[in-house]
Amino acid sequence: MSNRGMLIVLSGPSGVGKGTVRQAMLKDKDQNFKYSISMTTRNKRPGEVDGVDYFFRSKMEFESEIENGGMLEYAKYVDHYYGTPLRYVNETLESGTDVFLEIEVNGAMQVRKKCPDGVFIFLTPPDLVTLRDRIVKRGTDDAATIEKRLEKARSEIKMMQNYDYAVVNDKVELAVHRIEKIIESEHLRVPRVIDIYKKMIGVVNR
Amino acid sequence: MSNRGMLIVLSGPSGVGKGTVRQAMLKDKDQNFKYSISMTTRNKRPGEVDGVDYFFRSKMEFESEIENGGMLEYAKYVDHYYGTPLRYVNETLESGTDVFLEIEVNGAMQVRKKCPDGVFIFLTPPDLVTLRDRIVKRGTDDAATIEKRLEKARSEIKMMQNYDYAVVNDKVELAVHRIEKIIESEHLRVPRVIDIYKKMIGVVNR
Repeated sequence: MSNRGMLIVLSGPSGVGKGTVRQAMLKDKDQNFKYSISMTTRNKRPGEVDGVDYFFRSKMEFESEIENGGMLEYAKYVDHYYGTPLRYVNETLESGTDVFLEIEVNGAMQVRKKCPDGVFIFLTPPDLVTLRDRIVKRGTDDAATIEKRLEKARSEIKMMQNYDYAVVNDKVELAVHRIEKIIESEHLRVPRVIDIYKKMIGVVNR
Repeated sequence: MSNRGMLIVLSGPSGVGKGTVRQAMLKDKDQNFKYSISMTTRNKRPGEVDGVDYFFRSKMEFESEIENGGMLEYAKYVDHYYGTPLRYVNETLESGTDVFLEIEVNGAMQVRKKCPDGVFIFLTPPDLVTLRDRIVKRGTDDAATIEKRLEKARSEIKMMQNYDYAVVNDKVELAVHRIEKIIESEHLRVPRVIDIYKKMIGVVNR
């Protein structure tokens, strides 16, 4: 009764704390997913290990992966490539195991196009939630500060629209707990389980 | 920042144990939803209380509710009407509180048409899950028994297709736990929360 694994994508605006939430999720030994390690051309920092923190590759190797269609998503930041190798993701999903990605919003939108049945979770800055309170208490912030914050909020809400779930990162443990519930609950979705039942009956009809 | 409540519909084939799961859910004091009491024309049984177990109404009163569009869903079983009064559901949802319905599959499909943004949960008989094991161990069941079970399974899977989630009722506590996770997780869905954020920014733009 095995089934294809589920692709879980955690993303959100830069600075929201995606990495911290991901690390906390990986520490939980009850997790059943595999974390997909990113590939990068940037230099290894002290303490980082190839194949643990990143797959460290040369620019030529990375570009050859792109050309061969080997990247699920990728982007260039400050002259360095970052991306998700497609093969590990596919093989793990095929084996019936969930795969967890923690990536930037541009990468998440690339993945959404290729894997529309993935679960896309947007990590929301807590100050987006408290924005209204801050505005109500006007006077403490000047007009320019409010306008700047508002512009950021508009752009964040625009991003959020492309996701399935919005999880506020008010506390790391709470955010992790919410994401875990989403994963468990998504496994009960009819489109994800009905093939198992249909196959079961197919097996029987032979 | 209040929002419209969420409509949660629990249904499933007859005999699956919907009532038992519903009762267990209502006992949990942490629940934030309101249970919508059904209306019926059948006689009150010993111990039953009007307005608690059911709203007990005459056939004429029930039919007048139907004519006035006052029923969210209804059906006739063995010469008696059973149904969900629309008004309580609407008022509760408007006030921002979730509403929980436990109804028959035909009723659930009527509700689905009227409230497509509800959460529709199909309670699955555990023997649907173990069907395959039973077939593999052939010989213990005769061909006629297997064929009958298979026919039932086909009809159950057909029903399941119209729901968002499938929850196996192997143990009442486990089923309740799964439903609670679904409810919490559904509250994090972007289409359910994004209006709050948009309104927040709207308030600010005035």
